[in-house]
Amino acid sequence: MKEEGQVKEIPAKKEQFSEWYTAVVLKAELADYAPVRGCMVIRPYGYALWENMQARLDARFKATGHLNAYFPALIPESFLKKEAEHVQGFSPQVAWVTRGGDSELTEPLALRPTSEAIINYMYARWVKSYRDLPVLINQWCNIFRWEKTTRLFLRTLEFLWQEGHTLHRTQEEAQEETRRILNIYVDFVENDLAVPVIAGKKPESEKFPGALATYSIEALMPDGQALQAGTSHNLGQNFSRAFDIRYLDEDNTEKHPWGTSWGVSSRLIGAVIMTHGDDRGLFLPPRIAPYQLVIVPILYGKNDAMVLETCQKAKEMLNAFRAKLDDRPQFTAGWKFNEYEMRGVPLRVELGPRDVEKNQAVLVPRDGSGKRTVSLDRLAEEVKNLLEELQNNMLSRARAWVASVTTSATTLEEFKKNLTEKPGFVKVHWCGAQECENRLIDETRTTPRNMPLEEQNTTGRCIICGKETRTLIYYARTY
Amino acid sequence: MKEEGQVKEIPAKKEQFSEWYTAVVLKAELADYAPVRGCMVIRPYGYALWENMQARLDARFKATGHLNAYFPALIPESFLKKEAEHVQGFSPQVAWVTRGGDSELTEPLALRPTSEAIINYMYARWVKSYRDLPVLINQWCNIFRWEKTTRLFLRTLEFLWQEGHTLHRTQEEAQEETRRILNIYVDFVENDLAVPVIAGKKPESEKFPGALATYSIEALMPDGQALQAGTSHNLGQNFSRAFDIRYLDEDNTEKHPWGTSWGVSSRLIGAVIMTHGDDRGLFLPPRIAPYQLVIVPILYGKNDAMVLETCQKAKEMLNAFRAKLDDRPQFTAGWKFNEYEMRGVPLRVELGPRDVEKNQAVLVPRDGSGKRTVSLDRLAEEVKNLLEELQNNMLSRARAWVASVTTSATTLEEFKKNLTEKPGFVKVHWCGAQECENRLIDETRTTPRNMPLEEQNTTGRCIICGKETRTLIYYARTY
Repeated sequence: MKEEGQVKEIPAKKEQFSEWYTAVVLKAELADYAPVRGCMVIRPYGYALWENMQARLDARFKATGHLNAYFPALIPESFLKKEAEHVQGFSPQVAWVTRGGDSELTEPLALRPTSEAIINYMYARWVKSYRDLPVLINQWCNIFRWEKTTRLFLRTLEFLWQEGHTLHRTQEEAQEETRRILNIYVDFVENDLAVPVIAGKKPESEKFPGALATYSIEALMPDGQALQAGTSHNLGQNFSRAFDIRYLDEDNTEKHPWGTSWGVSSRLIGAVIMTHGDDRGLFLPPRIAPYQLVIVPILYGKNDAMVLETCQKAKEMLNAFRAKLDDRPQFTAGWKFNEYEMRGVPLRVELGPRDVEKNQAVLVPRDGSGKRTVSLDRLAEEVKNLLEELQNNMLSRARAWVASVTTSATTLEEFKKNLTEKPGFVKVHWCGAQECENRLIDETRTTPRNMPLEEQNTTGRCIICGKETRTLIYYARTY
Repeated sequence: MKEEGQVKEIPAKKEQFSEWYTAVVLKAELADYAPVRGCMVIRPYGYALWENMQARLDARFKATGHLNAYFPALIPESFLKKEAEHVQGFSPQVAWVTRGGDSELTEPLALRPTSEAIINYMYARWVKSYRDLPVLINQWCNIFRWEKTTRLFLRTLEFLWQEGHTLHRTQEEAQEETRRILNIYVDFVENDLAVPVIAGKKPESEKFPGALATYSIEALMPDGQALQAGTSHNLGQNFSRAFDIRYLDEDNTEKHPWGTSWGVSSRLIGAVIMTHGDDRGLFLPPRIAPYQLVIVPILYGKNDAMVLETCQKAKEMLNAFRAKLDDRPQFTAGWKFNEYEMRGVPLRVELGPRDVEKNQAVLVPRDGSGKRTVSLDRLAEEVKNLLEELQNNMLSRARAWVASVTTSATTLEEFKKNLTEKPGFVKVHWCGAQECENRLIDETRTTPRNMPLEEQNTTGRCIICGKETRTLIYYARTY
């Protein structure tokens, strides 16, 4: 009973991007729709990807002195109200628990839409002296936001994320932390996920509710829309005042510490899928792929035992990698090729009777760059090099594409023309006035993404009012 | 500015067990009370312990072919109702989301009290053929049960756990899985947490709502009360019928698969605290301790630099362990001794000027078994041996104590006398009748724990009705 693949059913990425995305998520068994509107199930293959991402990001947090903890998911309504901007920003999106067991609650409890309120409340109990600072805590947890639309991984009512919440003695330290984390996010997303990002500061209108300043990393998806991939907020003293966190400083006076918060979520999985996938399905970066390679025996009914034995040996040689051997007899090699390409396994190792004879294996990278034959004696080394090469190429290719659809505009007409011809980032000079921003948003149906840290201080004229300015800002359509 | 420890404030474990427990949890900064009644915060030190536990248990699940996934926390009311016993068992404990954003929900959503309903619903969509079996999925997540009383780690409205949910082709395979997991739990809890347990089958009255059979591991706490430390359920076809999960078998007929589910939770942290702690505070088993050892420099103001340098070297020699060097100048060595004993660090390494001169260090195990001086050349080896010895001794000591308070009874009088003189497990023969169980519970205010797998098939007489039986069962007071 040989079965054939379902790969052909994936719509073309170019023509039907949105349908392509959903088909890949479902067919690669990364996720599925849950019976509750807006909710998703992260299936084992998608969760293994998340676990690999989590491990690599968590290691970076720990290396910079952060500790994990766990705070309750239930937050009293009154807590959310303590920071004025914060409650305004989040209340339309909050899910409320109003009944417990058999009784109505006297105060409704919010399912955390983010945890600044509850965490800063606890910090007020824990922080007494300058010796207790900095507080560097992160948590991995589920988050709830009552979204109206649903896109698997990108926008769901419940999702997984990490949220860091720190306190510092000085404004400078808080700002350093905000930027340190932004750098960690850039490093993680670019080097592990191979997704290039623009790191910059958000304009006032796009700030986190309750923050002094918000920094973000912005990725660009193949349909030319931007995806906010992570944020790092300098909270100033807003939450430490709202929750009355005070510490006794060395000079014997009481002060409010300075806070930050920052997060990335499982939506990054969506960015990986969209950035690297193609018409054959998923393509996962080697550093985070659940399987970095799959070994497929090529069986002709002759010398099969020998081939299978060599496959086993190859798997042992490759035990430094996340390797899978698929020796199931009920599927053809061809079906397996399609299946693992669709599932985005970065590298395929083929072994047939002739290869065994010649003490060789055939390596087929997922990027379509062609087969290469290598000696079994050098298998582990060749695989290592090839996986590194693949990882680097994925980033380079994505970076080149983003560069190719990133344009500048000095007039509204140019802006609109760019956006039609090459949907992507459009960078403009901006005077900083809210009216100019509003006008640009209205006219173009884009939103400001961020002011890239690396591209400031060139002089230009505000695209709307023409005033001279040194501020450069990226705009794009967005998810 | 030298500060002195707060260790003296911990109540005596023997006299005020409950107060001792809470004081240790709070002072060792494992957890804190959250502002919502019944909720807790797991602080970084407690969470690091949980992460170590999680990693070791998760490795066992993965080694036996289980995969992690993530299912939604929100479950429609109608789903819980599909399995009749299940809804009855859980509905008094459910927290309900009734409002999302600005609007009332048409159907209330339960915050998962356990995930059989939502997971088996998804399984019905995924499982089609016998080739899809077994399904071996686990999830690590938060769980909500509207408890009336609160004890940190032991009973809270929200807690962390893992829940495995599997499907199998045959009843035998499901039973094997149920027992395989029970064995994993025994291995994990005894060998990593050093908490001895009784593994056995629950009587009907204590079964999981919706299960054919429930197995549990039961630990005994120093106040003589039993703590259910983990459960593994054979669900039969109950959920696969309720959710209409069917697979096409090799014989071309449709069948319902056989299910299991199983879980342990963050309450295991409570068992660790109670089992090993003493009047000086916490005592953590080396395999799961956030810090396996702490290095404390003994400074006299002379040759301090040399001592500190040697401490740094010792830390490098011990990099195979989770080692902390506390060289903070503002605390005395004595304060640090107390602090890390209170926090349960299994081993202290002291280094003073004379030790440096003699190329030696002083090892002080947390169990009070006395100092030993070792050559720095053999430091890593001695530490390794000593940590293993400590781990083993913790289990042996706990096991000996449980044995010393485990008694048999053949009459109600004997049962009550045992319970007064040596509060602990009381084992009795039982005919299996519900009336006899009810009577025993009423008369003794204990509950049946389980029928230990290793102690069946000795003939005796039911403690209540006197009928001859081969069933032995453990009773105890319980949390």
